[in-house]
Amino acid sequence: MRDFSQDHRWLSLNTATVRKQGDLAAIIEACARHGIRAIDPWRDQVAAIGLDRAVRLVKDAGLELSGYCRGGMFTADDAHRSAVRDDNRRAVDEAAALGASCVVLVVGGLPQYSRPGSAPSKDIVAARAQVHDALADLLDYARQAKMPLAIEPLHPAYAADRACVNTTKQALDLCDALDPSRSGALGVALDVYHIWWDPELLPQIARAGKDRLMAFHVCDWLVPTKDLLNDRGMMGDGVIDIRSVRAAVEAQGFAGYSEIEIFSDAWWNQPMDEVLATCIERHRSVV
Amino acid sequence: MRDFSQDHRWLSLNTATVRKQGDLAAIIEACARHGIRAIDPWRDQVAAIGLDRAVRLVKDAGLELSGYCRGGMFTADDAHRSAVRDDNRRAVDEAAALGASCVVLVVGGLPQYSRPGSAPSKDIVAARAQVHDALADLLDYARQAKMPLAIEPLHPAYAADRACVNTTKQALDLCDALDPSRSGALGVALDVYHIWWDPELLPQIARAGKDRLMAFHVCDWLVPTKDLLNDRGMMGDGVIDIRSVRAAVEAQGFAGYSEIEIFSDAWWNQPMDEVLATCIERHRSVV
Repeated sequence: MRDFSQDHRWLSLNTATVRKQGDLAAIIEACARHGIRAIDPWRDQVAAIGLDRAVRLVKDAGLELSGYCRGGMFTADDAHRSAVRDDNRRAVDEAAALGASCVVLVVGGLPQYSRPGSAPSKDIVAARAQVHDALADLLDYARQAKMPLAIEPLHPAYAADRACVNTTKQALDLCDALDPSRSGALGVALDVYHIWWDPELLPQIARAGKDRLMAFHVCDWLVPTKDLLNDRGMMGDGVIDIRSVRAAVEAQGFAGYSEIEIFSDAWWNQPMDEVLATCIERHRSVV
Repeated sequence: MRDFSQDHRWLSLNTATVRKQGDLAAIIEACARHGIRAIDPWRDQVAAIGLDRAVRLVKDAGLELSGYCRGGMFTADDAHRSAVRDDNRRAVDEAAALGASCVVLVVGGLPQYSRPGSAPSKDIVAARAQVHDALADLLDYARQAKMPLAIEPLHPAYAADRACVNTTKQALDLCDALDPSRSGALGVALDVYHIWWDPELLPQIARAGKDRLMAFHVCDWLVPTKDLLNDRGMMGDGVIDIRSVRAAVEAQGFAGYSEIEIFSDAWWNQPMDEVLATCIERHRSVV
């Protein structure tokens, strides 16, 4: 297991962590000030400053991209299906332009939440079948663009509105079904927040292996959690044994970035430099 | 699958659903007014009016008990271990006095939340081992009292603070380990709120079979869920396909009560008679 206590070489910043404090240009400047060498930007943040400018800023700063957030939201009714496909293909193109290591996929929950305007449904089994089919289609496109896709299983609390892929096993079952040869085109993005509770976590990480482990995200689960979406904790402030999960991932050969992604009204209200300084300190002491 | 549309013969009321509107005596009176024939009372509600009086009121009203809530909270540090054992044995004794069909077990999460004052831990694997051991001990006691124990897997959102048994599979693995002969002494209480998202739900219900299916609880998952504990929905107001879960349970031969358990600040603010009338209507139209 790598020693993170001496530096933050392997810290990546998911830019949603400071999305309220500044635009992507400001975040990239802040990363330079703090010696942060990798980011994972969100599409809306890229769009807000323009893709070309984002590409230039990333390149000029010498940043690596540990992922690009996000593709997916595959579940939709028929009327929205082609928009879903086009939207996801654009995500792949943007990720390629930015030089991202993968596109992170949040697959969508029930169609009315995934793609607003879609006909309401309570059929989560049908939603899961849709994810399979739409992902198969996108995978063809992504292979040609040489852009790996990383399915992010989301905590079951988001099954209705964000992702009906809720366990590492489920994500890996999709990988095995759509990429049985383990070509490197499809894998998983594991966020400790979503998976820490899973009784099958360790065997499923072992099953994933190095070639399926495309991204590793950290934050913490607070008790109590006051808001299901925007009350995630800074590493060390909650109940997740983060280091044991990182140990399991690295035991498989994962040697990439430990990406900090914190959706938090509390941290969004702090100055960007203070958030980043805390991230660095916790990366060294807790992650 | 049974037809619930004509009457509410198979409706049971978990008394937490109206815990703010009156004490257990008032709830039992209201059940009589509404023709509700079964309840599942909570220990604190029984204690508030006294066990002997509760036993008498239940008997005089001719009520059945679809369960007794709740035993468990097994996770604790060494200093709290004997208190945990004694507390759970009392729960079994109370259930027997009341004539309950089973004791519902919420197994506890990390020890500092399960039994406040216990030394803090982030080791959920150790918590699960503790659950196994404490449950084995309680099962010996419950067998002698001829009181079945029903493990309730709780939604992963409660893994830290309420229950580290978070899937039906996990609960059934415990059953198989501790009661391999399927003696009827140990089973599961399945609440659609906790399990609806589970991609393995249907095969696990089939695995459970009639002898392990001891209780079936209903409410609904609201989108958005504003409070993780006390924003559960009335059946039909959320996203759960309740009838498909009931169909799966009944396909195994389950023929017991459909127990309504709604923790909701919104419904606790409504008059008891209105809540019960709505429960009955939704039981017939949605469950």
